[in-house]
Amino acid sequence: MNKPIAVMDSGVGGLTVVQELMRQLPREEIIYFGDTARCPYGSRSKEEVKEFSYQIIDFLQKYDPKMIVIACNTATAVILEELNAKSNIPIIGVIHPGVRSVIKATVRGRVGVIGTQNTIQSGLYDYALKQIHPELYVKSLACPTFVPLVEEGTFQEQDVLSIVEEALIPFQEEDIDALILGCTHYPLLAPFIQKVMGNNIQLISSADETAREVSTILFHKNLLSQKFGRPEHHFFTSGKLSVFQHIAESWLAQPINVQYIPTEALENSQWLDTKSTIV
Amino acid sequence: MNKPIAVMDSGVGGLTVVQELMRQLPREEIIYFGDTARCPYGSRSKEEVKEFSYQIIDFLQKYDPKMIVIACNTATAVILEELNAKSNIPIIGVIHPGVRSVIKATVRGRVGVIGTQNTIQSGLYDYALKQIHPELYVKSLACPTFVPLVEEGTFQEQDVLSIVEEALIPFQEEDIDALILGCTHYPLLAPFIQKVMGNNIQLISSADETAREVSTILFHKNLLSQKFGRPEHHFFTSGKLSVFQHIAESWLAQPINVQYIPTEALENSQWLDTKSTIV
Repeated sequence: MNKPIAVMDSGVGGLTVVQELMRQLPREEIIYFGDTARCPYGSRSKEEVKEFSYQIIDFLQKYDPKMIVIACNTATAVILEELNAKSNIPIIGVIHPGVRSVIKATVRGRVGVIGTQNTIQSGLYDYALKQIHPELYVKSLACPTFVPLVEEGTFQEQDVLSIVEEALIPFQEEDIDALILGCTHYPLLAPFIQKVMGNNIQLISSADETAREVSTILFHKNLLSQKFGRPEHHFFTSGKLSVFQHIAESWLAQPINVQYIPTEALENSQWLDTKSTIV
Repeated sequence: MNKPIAVMDSGVGGLTVVQELMRQLPREEIIYFGDTARCPYGSRSKEEVKEFSYQIIDFLQKYDPKMIVIACNTATAVILEELNAKSNIPIIGVIHPGVRSVIKATVRGRVGVIGTQNTIQSGLYDYALKQIHPELYVKSLACPTFVPLVEEGTFQEQDVLSIVEEALIPFQEEDIDALILGCTHYPLLAPFIQKVMGNNIQLISSADETAREVSTILFHKNLLSQKFGRPEHHFFTSGKLSVFQHIAESWLAQPINVQYIPTEALENSQWLDTKSTIV
């Protein structure tokens, strides 16, 4: 139970989940891999997303984690079900926590989902929402312009607002009361999204809700850390170290230990060849 | 997976959990037992709470539930751990969902808990909060006057406000930013509690959060209902049928099917004698 929680993401977006994990589970050690060099996953082919995701999961396994969090909606949509079937440790994606929360939040049963092209096209949000609540009205929308805005790490407020405003035009006549930010990068744009959508719309961040579910599952599986003192976290990025470190330290408000792992070092993954049980 | 969810409570308070279960999981069938005749449990001996709770769980087992929700904080504090260790189906209490939520909600790490005498004396909220987050400041307070107010089913607004105001005096200097309503009856008093505590305090209802966790656990155990159409729920009370029906129909905003079960009919429970695995 004193093993780390492994978190994978296509880049820095998953740090929103890490921030909430640190806040809600301060005794838990985190190992994070952000595949910044190959970000965004949202417009890549499913095969690529699958290959990259499994490479990272292979890498994270070396740290003997007690749980894996797929902190990327695109990767969740592509590999969650398959990985869950093969894994001996719990795998938590970011889609279903958001789904359960928006169902809790909506008053009139009319909800929106925004995400990357791949996430929205997968139809997994729609499916998961209707699976639990068949009578919900769901309007989904891909917002491919949002991730690049966040990964750049610098915002020009007025430009961001215009981009967000234009992307969200299709919601104008939809009369929804809750909106899932179906990409872990989007919470960073939340103030802009809220401004465009108005204050009567509840924004559901996958990040908060995923951390909450990690806490729930660790408890029910009797896996909560028993260690005292501040845990030591480890971060890895396939991209530029200084950019990752800058963004991570500013979001997490603490100095962090980051290591650069070139994507070439990942490419020996046996997972896609052997199809064996990997964790 | 199309089996019902069983919910037990000392009276009508657990209907706040049922209301949220119906809203968040509209495909799930619910079997509810409210032990109104012996309510409140909050000031009874632990032995009595244990005996009564197991009698009800025995009764609910006849319906072959896929999960048992102990929708009563007092009963959760007394039997959750023991029952969990013996049960083959998931058991969800109302204490830990509230704990995880208040940790998510607090900004300054100063939280309050209110509950019955038994719940507060058990120290389980304090323990569970500190277990996850050792640095939290926690102020707990028993409010034995609240349950009778709710079970009566009729409120005189001014009287209720005075009772709530007096009970919450110990929080005046505590500077907390979130408060767990650590009894399933208390959400019915939420407007009064909010008025007394002020709008800057977030109230955490065990009911909402427990329903959310039921949803999470059913999903992760692959137990969500696959049925379509409105499920048929069943309610049982050991107390006065008309009072229970009146309160239940007004909270749940629908006609319900209630049956009277005298406590004598429950007393043949084998559980306390045999100590065998019961579910």
